[in-house]
Amino acid sequence: MIFRQLFDAESGTYTYLLASEAERNALLIDPVVEQVDRYLQLLAELRLTLCYALDTHTHADHITALGELREKTGCITIMGEFTKADCVSRRVADGEEIVLDDIRLRALFTPGHTNESFSFYLESGGERAVFTGDCLLIRGSGRTDFQGGDPAKSYDSITGTLFALPDDTFVYPGHDYKGWTRSTIAEEKANNPRIAGKSRDEYIEIMNGLDLPDPKMMDIAVPANLACGQSPFRS
Amino acid sequence: MIFRQLFDAESGTYTYLLASEAERNALLIDPVVEQVDRYLQLLAELRLTLCYALDTHTHADHITALGELREKTGCITIMGEFTKADCVSRRVADGEEIVLDDIRLRALFTPGHTNESFSFYLESGGERAVFTGDCLLIRGSGRTDFQGGDPAKSYDSITGTLFALPDDTFVYPGHDYKGWTRSTIAEEKANNPRIAGKSRDEYIEIMNGLDLPDPKMMDIAVPANLACGQSPFRS
Repeated sequence: MIFRQLFDAESGTYTYLLASEAERNALLIDPVVEQVDRYLQLLAELRLTLCYALDTHTHADHITALGELREKTGCITIMGEFTKADCVSRRVADGEEIVLDDIRLRALFTPGHTNESFSFYLESGGERAVFTGDCLLIRGSGRTDFQGGDPAKSYDSITGTLFALPDDTFVYPGHDYKGWTRSTIAEEKANNPRIAGKSRDEYIEIMNGLDLPDPKMMDIAVPANLACGQSPFRS
Repeated sequence: MIFRQLFDAESGTYTYLLASEAERNALLIDPVVEQVDRYLQLLAELRLTLCYALDTHTHADHITALGELREKTGCITIMGEFTKADCVSRRVADGEEIVLDDIRLRALFTPGHTNESFSFYLESGGERAVFTGDCLLIRGSGRTDFQGGDPAKSYDSITGTLFALPDDTFVYPGHDYKGWTRSTIAEEKANNPRIAGKSRDEYIEIMNGLDLPDPKMMDIAVPANLACGQSPFRS
């Protein structure tokens, strides 16, 4: 399998390219609209056909490339079944698999950061990885104070669903702001300061006390992303 | 083997952590002084002992963490044999191996960006990787206009030494400014715009025509790095 982690420095967003080596079919997870030309360059240089573009959730901090990628490549756009983005072509349910040649991604419903957040679990060639969006971050977790966010659900998604994955599963988050690119489930169980040694109530108290400012792009990004990044609000 | 790619956003520098899984011994390639606390945090959280810290070359765009890591962990500092940094504990020659438990890094003399630049080649568990410093970048190459830089040597290092490695070798560069984290030798052979389909003379012309401004930290970084990042010039 071909695997590339890509970073959008402006929003601190990680995007993931997965592709089958023999058939040269690709999918992108959490693509950012400003990076579309670079994705198209990379796909062309690696001789890949983009089949799927998926978002883990409705982002509030950057504009998704789903709509633009569908327009430019004809790819199928995918989100979890509870998204309010009417423009998405395919909605996956908890436990459903997205199959692309020998790549199998299992959708995991992991609400908490938003009420429609999914993670995607991959097993390939003896390695395991989970793309956690903004549910579980490296030594952190996504805020839970808007878009149906709920710290109790976030705790249950992380400890009940993600921490039930094998310990050696690589954690590939939707963001990182300190330059770390991946972690593992075991590492987060042991070292995530919001969760390791903390009760559910303590986690809820931490999250409710974060008092973060709104993301600077929120008023633009959320309505735009509900239209797959192609809102009339975008200039 | 444990492997982590770490990013310093300020200087666009990639640092690499490699560690043996059973013995928990680690080495760092191209560490950045401002990130030392994060390296120490990660080493502690993963229960690793830092044995080696190495630089591919004398950096002009950030200050190395070699000296500070040696002070704080007692690790051995390593550079290529032609470095002018007197403070380095061990100097490796072309073809020499750095061995850390089951990790074997082969030093490759790849001058051109500077006259003392080395790359480091790794084979582990059927995977191959080369840490190229600023010699070969993803779709680019390091500038050749100071510190003994030489575009002809850069071309020969890239096409003669690095492109002689197996095509599926992952290229892990010292920097990337567009959010790409790795490439392969085959990919760079086919798609590096300075080299693919270009002659040696054309490459030299491209490099001599770049007309780049000096790195903003150059006057501080080079003298500091010749003292392993512990120059009296540092405040």
